[in-house]
Amino acid sequence: MNYPNGRRSSSRHAAPQGKTKPEFSNRGMTLEEDINLTNEYYLQAGMAVIHKKPTPVQIVQVDYPKRSAAVIKEAYFKQASTTDYNGVYRGRYIDFEAKETKNKTSFPLSNVHQHQVDHMKAVEKHGGISFFIIKFTPRDEVYLLPSSTLFAFWDDQQNGGRKSIPYHSIDKEGFRIPFRYQARIDYAGVLDKLYF
Amino acid sequence: MNYPNGRRSSSRHAAPQGKTKPEFSNRGMTLEEDINLTNEYYLQAGMAVIHKKPTPVQIVQVDYPKRSAAVIKEAYFKQASTTDYNGVYRGRYIDFEAKETKNKTSFPLSNVHQHQVDHMKAVEKHGGISFFIIKFTPRDEVYLLPSSTLFAFWDDQQNGGRKSIPYHSIDKEGFRIPFRYQARIDYAGVLDKLYF
Repeated sequence: MNYPNGRRSSSRHAAPQGKTKPEFSNRGMTLEEDINLTNEYYLQAGMAVIHKKPTPVQIVQVDYPKRSAAVIKEAYFKQASTTDYNGVYRGRYIDFEAKETKNKTSFPLSNVHQHQVDHMKAVEKHGGISFFIIKFTPRDEVYLLPSSTLFAFWDDQQNGGRKSIPYHSIDKEGFRIPFRYQARIDYAGVLDKLYF
Repeated sequence: MNYPNGRRSSSRHAAPQGKTKPEFSNRGMTLEEDINLTNEYYLQAGMAVIHKKPTPVQIVQVDYPKRSAAVIKEAYFKQASTTDYNGVYRGRYIDFEAKETKNKTSFPLSNVHQHQVDHMKAVEKHGGISFFIIKFTPRDEVYLLPSSTLFAFWDDQQNGGRKSIPYHSIDKEGFRIPFRYQARIDYAGVLDKLYF
């Protein structure tokens, strides 16, 4: 396993029954909530400007009642054409997608879409940094996986390869993201070691 | 001439009278449509990856009819916390807001919101490039205004200064964006001169 910050993964898992310990305090929150809180912390601390993009919606009908706000009465969810998060960190363009899986032994590639891969390949081509944040919920473990690693599995799948990335590959080629009080999914620390 | 999306620019424009001139052919299209087409061109041509963020919507009620897509039955427009467009160009983080005004002699600062200014100041602090694209509709003229120029007027307004930026200041301190067939609002060319 790679530890860009030199920390042992065991620090998060010292005590199975110890829910008073900070390393367990993120249970019950979704990965998205944790990342949003992290981004808010980064913003407040003047570390980075990274936001989640709004959910794309196709608006069909809007009512404009007198003296009150416009009400959308009919709309549909659209598929996003890019990724969930982007922004700027230490002068670099950052772009990532966050995915949770209930699977314990592998990350199913069905969680990823072709247009996201295309988008991330374009981002990398233009000098941006793109990656996945993958949470194995049953393990309560979060990894940063550089998009290039995922591309290899993706392209392999297109050629008849396996439809998922084994946990051990993510553990080996990805970077475990530590849980912290303020930066709950502290991916910036991993980026520091990897790209700066 | 090659059109990366295979589309002839003339196909969009019947061009009745005088509209055969390229500098007039964008009449009738909104600034947003023109910028979206420009970004699409940049993407297809492998020049940049810049997207408009979806309109943020607060979803209140969703129906899930059997055998068909989820329908949003009640939702409200939310104020965006950032700017309209961002992405990566030549390795740099790009962030901008596009505004049209029907005013001929000045750009009213009421078009801009404090949170956008705060966001852009943070972007600049982290090494990103932020700017406004301002269209004077009656003049059919489009300018790139570096956000630092707008900040000066913004901060001045806060201290009792004027509530708009005079056209002549934008003409002097901003950069006219030429209209082109393919890149209809070709701001990348201006960025090349300014930042690279």
